[in-house]
Amino acid sequence: MKSRAAVAFAPGKPLQIVEIDVAPPKAGEVLVKITHTGVCHTDAFTLSGDDPEGIFPAVLGHEGGGIVVEVGEGVTTLQPGDHVIPLYTAECGKCKFCLSGKTNLCQAVRATQGKGLMPDGTTRFSYQGQPIYHYMGTSTFSEYTVVPEISLAKIDTQAPLDKVCLLGCGVTTGIGAVHNTAKVGPGSTVAVFGLGGIGLAVIQGAVQAKASRIIGVDINADKFALAREMGATECVNPKDHDKPIQEVIVAMTDGGVDYSFECIGNVDVMRAALECCHKGWGESIIIGVAGAGKEIHTRPFQLVTGRVWRGSAFGGVKGRSQLPGIVQQAMRGDIRLDPFITHRLPLEQINEAFDLMHEGKSIRTVIHF
Amino acid sequence: MKSRAAVAFAPGKPLQIVEIDVAPPKAGEVLVKITHTGVCHTDAFTLSGDDPEGIFPAVLGHEGGGIVVEVGEGVTTLQPGDHVIPLYTAECGKCKFCLSGKTNLCQAVRATQGKGLMPDGTTRFSYQGQPIYHYMGTSTFSEYTVVPEISLAKIDTQAPLDKVCLLGCGVTTGIGAVHNTAKVGPGSTVAVFGLGGIGLAVIQGAVQAKASRIIGVDINADKFALAREMGATECVNPKDHDKPIQEVIVAMTDGGVDYSFECIGNVDVMRAALECCHKGWGESIIIGVAGAGKEIHTRPFQLVTGRVWRGSAFGGVKGRSQLPGIVQQAMRGDIRLDPFITHRLPLEQINEAFDLMHEGKSIRTVIHF
Repeated sequence: MKSRAAVAFAPGKPLQIVEIDVAPPKAGEVLVKITHTGVCHTDAFTLSGDDPEGIFPAVLGHEGGGIVVEVGEGVTTLQPGDHVIPLYTAECGKCKFCLSGKTNLCQAVRATQGKGLMPDGTTRFSYQGQPIYHYMGTSTFSEYTVVPEISLAKIDTQAPLDKVCLLGCGVTTGIGAVHNTAKVGPGSTVAVFGLGGIGLAVIQGAVQAKASRIIGVDINADKFALAREMGATECVNPKDHDKPIQEVIVAMTDGGVDYSFECIGNVDVMRAALECCHKGWGESIIIGVAGAGKEIHTRPFQLVTGRVWRGSAFGGVKGRSQLPGIVQQAMRGDIRLDPFITHRLPLEQINEAFDLMHEGKSIRTVIHF
Repeated sequence: MKSRAAVAFAPGKPLQIVEIDVAPPKAGEVLVKITHTGVCHTDAFTLSGDDPEGIFPAVLGHEGGGIVVEVGEGVTTLQPGDHVIPLYTAECGKCKFCLSGKTNLCQAVRATQGKGLMPDGTTRFSYQGQPIYHYMGTSTFSEYTVVPEISLAKIDTQAPLDKVCLLGCGVTTGIGAVHNTAKVGPGSTVAVFGLGGIGLAVIQGAVQAKASRIIGVDINADKFALAREMGATECVNPKDHDKPIQEVIVAMTDGGVDYSFECIGNVDVMRAALECCHKGWGESIIIGVAGAGKEIHTRPFQLVTGRVWRGSAFGGVKGRSQLPGIVQQAMRGDIRLDPFITHRLPLEQINEAFDLMHEGKSIRTVIHF
């Protein structure tokens, strides 16, 4: 079938809005009509050409919501009309990872997904007869996309897709990292590095976890008002201090925070986030995605004296099992999505969403089709 | 009083066996007659001059056992005749760290200890009228030493001091890291980097924890026989492989080990130890002490995909609370100490213990007075 899509034909170039061909879903696959999609920094990272795993031409997009149109052979858990959120982290329920009970990093479709292909090694997208690759197993920048059944979370049909699409990546990632990865408890102190969408979601998770202090950190003080409104108890700007920010936070907190979160993808900030943790027990969680070849570093003494360095992908959330419940939380108002949505644009203007992001003017732009 | 002691007068020089003066214990302090002490790599590191915190002249030594001779004012938990193991990690029971329930890193005497001084800011040792500094709060290379009450674990008087002195550092560090820091459970897979004293202790801890596979890693295959005898299920030599050792271990274990331990102090090995852990849940524990200024590195993706980087000091063991029980384990044979003791020498020959260590010929030399 024909589908309007924003295609990344080449790195570093704007997306092109074209009509592509979408093949029907094969066995175990589902055709989804995307109604809304967020535009995330990871899309921008891949589009920029800096992502060494970026493949072109491709349909980007991984933070969407939509409605099942058609299911392939053997699909049993979804049917046309179901509302879904595509998952870039599948949940097959059968692999070593899913069965471990210790991680959400299902590997069932990992290999082909990383190559921009469906599990059978082919693509469902084409343009003028030439194949177009998938992206993160989701490709939500197309009105119609094909996704493996195990990469779709079925959600309440009453949930507003124009908002809960954000639970497909950023918001869930931040909140999940607080609960699943760090396991922040009541009375804990928390530092959040980077007050974009992920950072605000971490703040929201920390509020839910009843953290006693939530310290927002950003070099752009314009972000402090919203961070405070979302629950940050204080905000600090590294530019206001001569000392390294980790020393500032250690001094503010009588030895450091219990938990810190890096929500930027900057390896120097990752170090600061670790080193602002309290000796003996502080844990730092890396959420941001660093540039190709970048490495974290610190003195091992930081760990030997009790700090713990972790990371989190999709907030440790198992998409099919847990995302429906997270959508319910958003519907009840326990998770606020409105503050994240600073702009709405039609698909035809999606390149403006990237511009707004690069200019630091948006948290999330939600695209409608 | 007069005391025979091995004094480090200057970095990089052999210890000198001299008769020093030891002042009586002040309030909260205890005079201990050391009967035996191990010689540990950390002593050698400080003696070499590479330790930026090394202070000279000093009485080194931190792995000892002895008998209380005299107690200072206000000391209530110890009396002459008690058998004790000096602790380089005190346990005051009152500081933020002790009260946290999350760490063994009591900070009560940390500041002065780091300066080679007793808590009142002075030293009890002198030689020909010149002050000699303390070391790690223990200074076990002296027949008589003065130690804060909170830095002494009172142990069973039936425990053989010539063996359980090793529980003052290396053996406890390795076994404790398995149980307290990693919390290794039955059926887990474990890799142990470095098969010296700490590594062998980790193996022993992993056996106690009923790990299913215990992979010893060392570039000296001469160490494999004892490692196997202690419980390693297999041993690998990085020199036998063209690939990085982390890739070898990942291949051996269908994705990596559940837990790894770095027992050397080499930052490149620390990286290998992290990267040989299983995606999604593997945890690596740094035990070894790295050289001054050395930093650990890895790609943050290693953590974002679920590996956890930790460290351990004195095996996470709270000395006064837990070491007496560990001594009991050794007395019952649940911890084997004999395999660690490869040499015994009198104090006068202590420099030979350093030579044996540097030549890789000893695990531990126990010095008697």
